[in-house]
Amino acid sequence: MAAIIPVSFVGAETGTYRVLRMNAVVGEALAPVKAVTSHAVHLPPSALPGAAWVLRGTNSAVRYVERTETEALRAVQPTLGRPQCTHAALIPIRKSDAWWNLSQDERREIFETRSQHIASCLKYLPAIARRLHHGRELGEPFDFLTWFEYSAEHAQLFEELVQLLRTTEEWKYVDWEVDIRLIKNELASS
Amino acid sequence: MAAIIPVSFVGAETGTYRVLRMNAVVGEALAPVKAVTSHAVHLPPSALPGAAWVLRGTNSAVRYVERTETEALRAVQPTLGRPQCTHAALIPIRKSDAWWNLSQDERREIFETRSQHIASCLKYLPAIARRLHHGRELGEPFDFLTWFEYSAEHAQLFEELVQLLRTTEEWKYVDWEVDIRLIKNELASS
Repeated sequence: MAAIIPVSFVGAETGTYRVLRMNAVVGEALAPVKAVTSHAVHLPPSALPGAAWVLRGTNSAVRYVERTETEALRAVQPTLGRPQCTHAALIPIRKSDAWWNLSQDERREIFETRSQHIASCLKYLPAIARRLHHGRELGEPFDFLTWFEYSAEHAQLFEELVQLLRTTEEWKYVDWEVDIRLIKNELASS
Repeated sequence: MAAIIPVSFVGAETGTYRVLRMNAVVGEALAPVKAVTSHAVHLPPSALPGAAWVLRGTNSAVRYVERTETEALRAVQPTLGRPQCTHAALIPIRKSDAWWNLSQDERREIFETRSQHIASCLKYLPAIARRLHHGRELGEPFDFLTWFEYSAEHAQLFEELVQLLRTTEEWKYVDWEVDIRLIKNELASS
């Protein structure tokens, strides 16, 4: 249960998910690709000669979530891999030095007390599955890679969640953000 | 200032620091080596064919330290590399699933409110320099690698600090700990 989950997101010509669109929200763009595939392992770029990019991260212990919030999240959050979830998003984010120089209590204050990151997400989570991966300790270009899965009917709800988070005080510390929207490939080709 | 610092500790026949002793405090022993060298990069084991082991970690943002504690630590903690610090210790630690399944507030409560990890260390820090490296997200066998440097005259003080931490509630969650004591090699050979 406390196991870590390594992941490598590979952008290439072909893959499990077809890219619907890629946007640089803040900072520079990633090289455009047609497809994204996730692998549950840390792959070195040399293992994938055909890849335009490989983004790596690790899902591990929570860093801000408190006990009462853990319980609330558990009660509503779905698992990844639901068959109706044909849509996905990969949102790589980097936070500024100003964020990383804060102490733990200051980051928690901004993250939840002032930005209500967890409280806001709760409303959306029954529809939207997500998993956070940390890349910072790996020396990766992005500090966080968040993966989302949702059904076609919840595409607008997902848009609302993303826009809401981007208006928060927490997001003032985001200095690089790319937004990649995806659709499962068997549907993309039908 | 918010930069991450990657590190690889290499155990081998020769190296910068000579091993005085290696103890498995909890759990299994590491393969015995004569010397340890630290490299400020994440080295793959294949890069070091002569190494008995390579332990990797990353120094990054604090996870429990609050603002007032940050200020108190900054006021007393010395930097690594002081010339009089001929002695060093490398203490790799793994914590149990029971620890990693706790929420952030529960871990902070055990770490500081009940175990006084930071408050206890403050007394020792003017003499003992240290740097914490996280290995968990890297998929390493140890969750933490802490590196300590101190002078010969403070060897007993360091012993006191280590023993104090091992009696805390926090340490009940440590399920693997190896204690490696070292001395700078130019002195070891004199």
